[in-house]
Amino acid sequence: MSNELKIGIAGLGNVGVGVVKILARQGELLSRRSGTKLTISAVSARNRNADRGIDITPYEWCDDAIDLARRDDVDVVIELIGGEDGPARALVETALSNGKHVVTANKALIARHGESLAKLAESKGLALNYEAAVAGGIPIIKALREGLAANQFSRVYGILNGTCNYILTEMEETGRDFDDVLVEAQQLGYAEADPAFDVDGVDAAHKLAILTSVAYGCPVNFDAIHVEGIREISAIDIAYAAKLGYRIKLLGLTSKGENGIEQRVHPCLVPQKTPIAKVDGVFNAVVADGDFVDRTVFEGRGAGEGPTASAVLADIVDIARGTILPTFSIPVDEMKSQPTASMLDHFGAYYMRLNVLDVAGVIADISAILRDEEVSIESLLQQGRKPGEAVPVVLITHECREASMMRVVDAIEALEVTQERPRLIRMENFE
Amino acid sequence: MSNELKIGIAGLGNVGVGVVKILARQGELLSRRSGTKLTISAVSARNRNADRGIDITPYEWCDDAIDLARRDDVDVVIELIGGEDGPARALVETALSNGKHVVTANKALIARHGESLAKLAESKGLALNYEAAVAGGIPIIKALREGLAANQFSRVYGILNGTCNYILTEMEETGRDFDDVLVEAQQLGYAEADPAFDVDGVDAAHKLAILTSVAYGCPVNFDAIHVEGIREISAIDIAYAAKLGYRIKLLGLTSKGENGIEQRVHPCLVPQKTPIAKVDGVFNAVVADGDFVDRTVFEGRGAGEGPTASAVLADIVDIARGTILPTFSIPVDEMKSQPTASMLDHFGAYYMRLNVLDVAGVIADISAILRDEEVSIESLLQQGRKPGEAVPVVLITHECREASMMRVVDAIEALEVTQERPRLIRMENFE
Repeated sequence: MSNELKIGIAGLGNVGVGVVKILARQGELLSRRSGTKLTISAVSARNRNADRGIDITPYEWCDDAIDLARRDDVDVVIELIGGEDGPARALVETALSNGKHVVTANKALIARHGESLAKLAESKGLALNYEAAVAGGIPIIKALREGLAANQFSRVYGILNGTCNYILTEMEETGRDFDDVLVEAQQLGYAEADPAFDVDGVDAAHKLAILTSVAYGCPVNFDAIHVEGIREISAIDIAYAAKLGYRIKLLGLTSKGENGIEQRVHPCLVPQKTPIAKVDGVFNAVVADGDFVDRTVFEGRGAGEGPTASAVLADIVDIARGTILPTFSIPVDEMKSQPTASMLDHFGAYYMRLNVLDVAGVIADISAILRDEEVSIESLLQQGRKPGEAVPVVLITHECREASMMRVVDAIEALEVTQERPRLIRMENFE
Repeated sequence: MSNELKIGIAGLGNVGVGVVKILARQGELLSRRSGTKLTISAVSARNRNADRGIDITPYEWCDDAIDLARRDDVDVVIELIGGEDGPARALVETALSNGKHVVTANKALIARHGESLAKLAESKGLALNYEAAVAGGIPIIKALREGLAANQFSRVYGILNGTCNYILTEMEETGRDFDDVLVEAQQLGYAEADPAFDVDGVDAAHKLAILTSVAYGCPVNFDAIHVEGIREISAIDIAYAAKLGYRIKLLGLTSKGENGIEQRVHPCLVPQKTPIAKVDGVFNAVVADGDFVDRTVFEGRGAGEGPTASAVLADIVDIARGTILPTFSIPVDEMKSQPTASMLDHFGAYYMRLNVLDVAGVIADISAILRDEEVSIESLLQQGRKPGEAVPVVLITHECREASMMRVVDAIEALEVTQERPRLIRMENFE
């Protein structure tokens, strides 16, 4: 084997350690598969002497990660520092400027600066690969960019955050509330000490921005995403959803319609029978609906040392095999910005839970509000009677405009019998 | 765009028509994605004047498909003739010999002659792509060869035949028997007039042989596969399986163990909660268990005009982008034959349904036979009592050697109280 690909790794957290482990255990297999000897030349991390369970003494050490981008014995830099700016961005820019390929697991960096970095990579004929940035070990970027390349996508959606999916699954299985399950997830290492990034939907939104760009050939546009997290999902909503034949999942969805691209991350009622509803715990899944291939589903672990390192090394194998593709499938110079569809124009069904006094005429008042906004009811659930006291009323609407539903919520909140602002959760039937 | 890739299509059945339709509808998009203009130069089919709903007059016509392999205006031949020998094989060999890339949906051809064809392709630096041959629109070959390339696979398995999955799903949902549902499947176009190829497991076995080669880097070895179809699955077994928390699926499974490679296609009880159990109707799914990525699941349509044509064109886009990889991931010259594990050494759990006279001591006799073969029982189901008459007894074993179970079946069949040969179905728990 005459070819060799020399690797520099920046960041030796669990993913970096996973990369080193895979190359140690099956570097020879990867070399046979790629026709190229894969060698780690140099590494960098915050702390040289941390106990990582691997021996890094065979590799050159760089105190400053950016030095990896300047070494003659590095052909490709693996960026595992994280963060959308700062040293990660500087490293990637310097590496590409210096003619090094880049592989990264950094979703924030690609979601925020993907366009300019792709432009730089493409101008130099270099790879900027980021399979590990979206849905961990699932090769979804490759699927959209290559395996499903013959298709236009009506929509791409998925469970993109394992922490949220774990919490929602646990809430459903145990009937416990969000705060309670979050603490447990933190103890188990499934949630960070500061969980905001995950549970507020930001992490899923970073991934969605990238999927949108690959699927629709438009520049990444993170700021166009409507983002809601799962903090306000309560056990009672999960229970009602189950009664109605649904489960609640945090989804990232991107679709292209008359009004442009609609990107949204929010909790969603999905029918129990649909594939995405059956994805439990820390697993991720992405569904791509192509005009010729129809529905395809990709499921696997969305995080963790092994799965993420597996994705990083798939990117390395591609480079070793000489597969250097435009970052987002279509070269940046040929990409076209697309209009952003306003969420007020979103058209879909809604689950709404009201807390109202059980007095004569209350359902008539609510029905009148819905009628005035031309929102029709598919089903209504009112269990038990407590005359004069507060009772929950749950209803599901037919498809309608989001703007109408927002006015419905305001109007119902203003009723004298209403005890708190109605809780609204969007639904997707995926038919 | 200066590059052009000129295509010749042999076979204008539904997949060929799908390929023409995709290029007509979104050829411009595919050209942007691949950086190459994709053009159909010539086509060939049995009947020039068949009504296909597409206009083929813009393309050169070849009465004999093999002429496509000799044309100067063809860079890549798409072989959609089918059949493991005859004109399909001749066309592919001639095309490769003449320096043309080949894309095929022909699973029988690759399963039977993959090694020699790959050798020819690799010697010429040509692509021999066959994504459409396995699991239709699901990009599973790409996933194993590229997206999961960093992994060793403990096993790869899946629902590889949509006809069988449709029949089993219908049998379960309606309680009807095989023959009845088969007729309906034929009327709906989900099963061929001669269904043997599908329902006897041959089609799934062709696909499994290919998956094995890609996953384990060994030459395709179709003859090593243990193949059983679904004709003997009865409604009663499906009902008992459901009662025990399982569904019956026709699976293709390949795994690598101490005894070598074990390839098998047979009906299987799988726990209702496992992802593969939830794949219904004509959908296919493949699960790859990698040592670093863990479990990954790929689901989509396994057949049909659009999905299969989508896979064919993904292969074309790869060629247009210059991605020419060894046919089975590792070059044929570096592949190593692996020993075949005997089915008698298969180690697993079994479902067994007996039809025995309800007389004193029958369970004791059966238990003694199992004990003598060191097969232990996980659960036993005997519903109702009909003294002196035949009753079904269903039992599930713990894991044991297949050779032991075969002796158990023989011994139970020989008992005087036994009314018919015990029905045995293998189980997989996928833990």
